[in-house]
Amino acid sequence: MKKLINAPENVVDEALAGMLAAHPGYIRVEEPNIVVRKDAPKAGKVGIISGGGSGHEPMHGGFVGMGMLDAACPGAVFTSPVPDQMLAATKAVDSGAGVLHIVKNYTGDIMNFELAAELARAEGHEVSAVVIADDVAVKDSLYTAGRRGVGGTVLAEKIVGAAAEAGADLATVTALCQKVQDNVRSMGMALTSCTVPSAGKPTFEIADDEMEIGVGIHGEPGRSRMKLATADEITEMLATPILDDLPFERGDNVLAFVNGLGGTPLIELYIVFNKLQQLCAARGVTITRSLVGSYITSLDMAGCSITLLKLDDELTGYWDAPVNTPGLRWGV
Amino acid sequence: MKKLINAPENVVDEALAGMLAAHPGYIRVEEPNIVVRKDAPKAGKVGIISGGGSGHEPMHGGFVGMGMLDAACPGAVFTSPVPDQMLAATKAVDSGAGVLHIVKNYTGDIMNFELAAELARAEGHEVSAVVIADDVAVKDSLYTAGRRGVGGTVLAEKIVGAAAEAGADLATVTALCQKVQDNVRSMGMALTSCTVPSAGKPTFEIADDEMEIGVGIHGEPGRSRMKLATADEITEMLATPILDDLPFERGDNVLAFVNGLGGTPLIELYIVFNKLQQLCAARGVTITRSLVGSYITSLDMAGCSITLLKLDDELTGYWDAPVNTPGLRWGV
Repeated sequence: MKKLINAPENVVDEALAGMLAAHPGYIRVEEPNIVVRKDAPKAGKVGIISGGGSGHEPMHGGFVGMGMLDAACPGAVFTSPVPDQMLAATKAVDSGAGVLHIVKNYTGDIMNFELAAELARAEGHEVSAVVIADDVAVKDSLYTAGRRGVGGTVLAEKIVGAAAEAGADLATVTALCQKVQDNVRSMGMALTSCTVPSAGKPTFEIADDEMEIGVGIHGEPGRSRMKLATADEITEMLATPILDDLPFERGDNVLAFVNGLGGTPLIELYIVFNKLQQLCAARGVTITRSLVGSYITSLDMAGCSITLLKLDDELTGYWDAPVNTPGLRWGV
Repeated sequence: MKKLINAPENVVDEALAGMLAAHPGYIRVEEPNIVVRKDAPKAGKVGIISGGGSGHEPMHGGFVGMGMLDAACPGAVFTSPVPDQMLAATKAVDSGAGVLHIVKNYTGDIMNFELAAELARAEGHEVSAVVIADDVAVKDSLYTAGRRGVGGTVLAEKIVGAAAEAGADLATVTALCQKVQDNVRSMGMALTSCTVPSAGKPTFEIADDEMEIGVGIHGEPGRSRMKLATADEITEMLATPILDDLPFERGDNVLAFVNGLGGTPLIELYIVFNKLQQLCAARGVTITRSLVGSYITSLDMAGCSITLLKLDDELTGYWDAPVNTPGLRWGV
C-alpha cells in the first residue's frame, strides 16, 4: 500500500486536522468529528447537512461554507457516520429555521440519518431529509437498496446551499433538493481499484487490460468487467445510459460534471469532457454549465464518473450563486 | 498503460478541445495550439504568458483568465512548446503595454522562450522574462542547469497576474515576479512513476516499498531512493530542506502549498498539510495562506510537493486579489 499516511486508524482524524489547519477561515471541527461552518448557526437560515464515509474528498467536509453545507459528518473511510454525528451537526447549525439532511443512498447512511433525525425532532428541531440516488449503473448494490447516491450529491449540495443562503425556508429547500434528485443521473467507471488504508490491499483485483464499467464509489462491482477501451468508447458507455434514463431530450440544457475518482489526472478528464460534449450535441442537448475535476472520489481509484443535471432557470441561478468553501469557490 | 485517452498522439489536442468545451467563457484556443484569455488583449494591461510541456494540468492552460495568465503555450507531453507558440501568444495578448514571459527553468523552455522573445522584439513588442527555479532538491538535473522550476510557478502566475490586472507596468510586474522567485522554495516526492502516453510504460521503475525523494515533475531522479516512510517523515524530509534554504525564519509569514502530482487524492494531501503546519509552527513560521490540491502535476504520478512562499503585505494582497480561471477562482 503506497499512501501518504501515518497509521491507517488515524487517517480521518489527521486529514480533518489538516483541513482545519489549511482552512481556519471556513470551518471549525467539533466533537464527535463533525465539520461545521465557522459562522454557524446563521440567524434565520435553514441548516444544510450532509455526510457519509470518508475517502470521497473533498465531499463532504470540503463543501462546508457559505452557499453550500453548514456541516458535514465524516465517517471512518467508506463507513457511515454514526447518528451522534448527525445529531450534533443538526444541533450545531439549527438557528430555529430547521435543518435539511442530504443523504446519499447507502443503507447505513439512510439508517443513521433517520435515527439522528428522530432524535433531533425529539429535542425540538425541525428536520427534513432528501435521499440522492442518481447512479444509473445498477438497480441495487452490495450497500444499497435502489440506486446509489453519487455525483449528483455534489450538485445538490451546491444548489440547495445557495437557496438556503438566499433565505428559502425548509419546505422550499427540501423540495428543491428533490427537484435536483429528479433531474440528475450519473455513472462511473474504474481503471484500477482503490485501497482502503485499514485493509492495506486493493478492494478488488483487475487485470492490466481490464476496466469496470458502472463501478460504485467504494469499488462496488458495476455493470460489467471488460477489456480496456478508448476514452471515447468509455465516455459513450457512460453517457448513453445516463442520457436514455431521464431521458434527456433535444432542447434540454444540462450541467455536465466530469469527475475524477482520485487517481486520475485532469488532462484525462478533459478528454472525456470533449467526447461528452460531442455526444450531447448529437442529441440536441446543450451543455450550458460544467464542472471538471475530482470532487467525489474513491480514495486513490483511477477512473471517472459522468453526471448530467437537467437545468432550468431556477437551478442555473442557484448553481451560479456565490459559494465559498475549500472545495468549490466563486463569486466571493 | 491504463489511461482515459484515445491515441497517444492526440492527447494534448483532445484535452485542449475539452478545456475549450468546458470553459468557453474563459478561453479561446488558437493556432499553433495556444490558450488565450477570451478577452485578450486588454487595453493598457501588461500581458502575462507562461507555458511548458503538457502533463502538468491545470498548469498552465487552466490558469488563463482574469487575474492570472493572458495566454499559455502547451507543448507536447513533457516537451517544451516551440517558439512559434510563444511568439503567437505574445502577439495575441500585447495591448501595447508589453508582455512578461514566466519561464520554468528547463533547458528547452529557456531556449525557446528566449528565441520567441527575440522574434517578438524584432516585431516591435516589448518583452521581459523571469525564470522560476524553486526546487531545492537538486542543483542540476537531466533537463536543467540550476534548480528546476516547479510549484513556485503557480504562485508566481497568480501574484503577477493580479498585479498586471491592477494596472502595474511591465517593469513592475517583472520585478514582482523576480521577488516571488526570490522568496519561494519547493521540493517533491514520488510514490509511483508517471507514464507518458507515447512511451506507454512507466518513466522509471520503483519497488512497492520504495519512494523517490526530490523527484522532478517529469519523473527526473531526485535526491535519494529509499524505503517508504510515513506521511509525517516524508513531510519532514521535504519541509526541512525548504525551510533551511531561504532560510525561512522565526516570525515569517508564509503561503504553504501542498500539491498533488496527479495520482494522489486530497485526503492524503491534508495529512501532509497537518504535519507541515506543525513543522512550521515549531520554527516560529506562521502559515497565513494555504493552497491544497493538484495544481502542478506529473500526469498520473502518485506523490506530492511542498512549496513555501515568504509573504509580505504586497504578496499577500496580490494573492488575495480576485482570480477567475478554470483552475483557480475566487473573488468574482
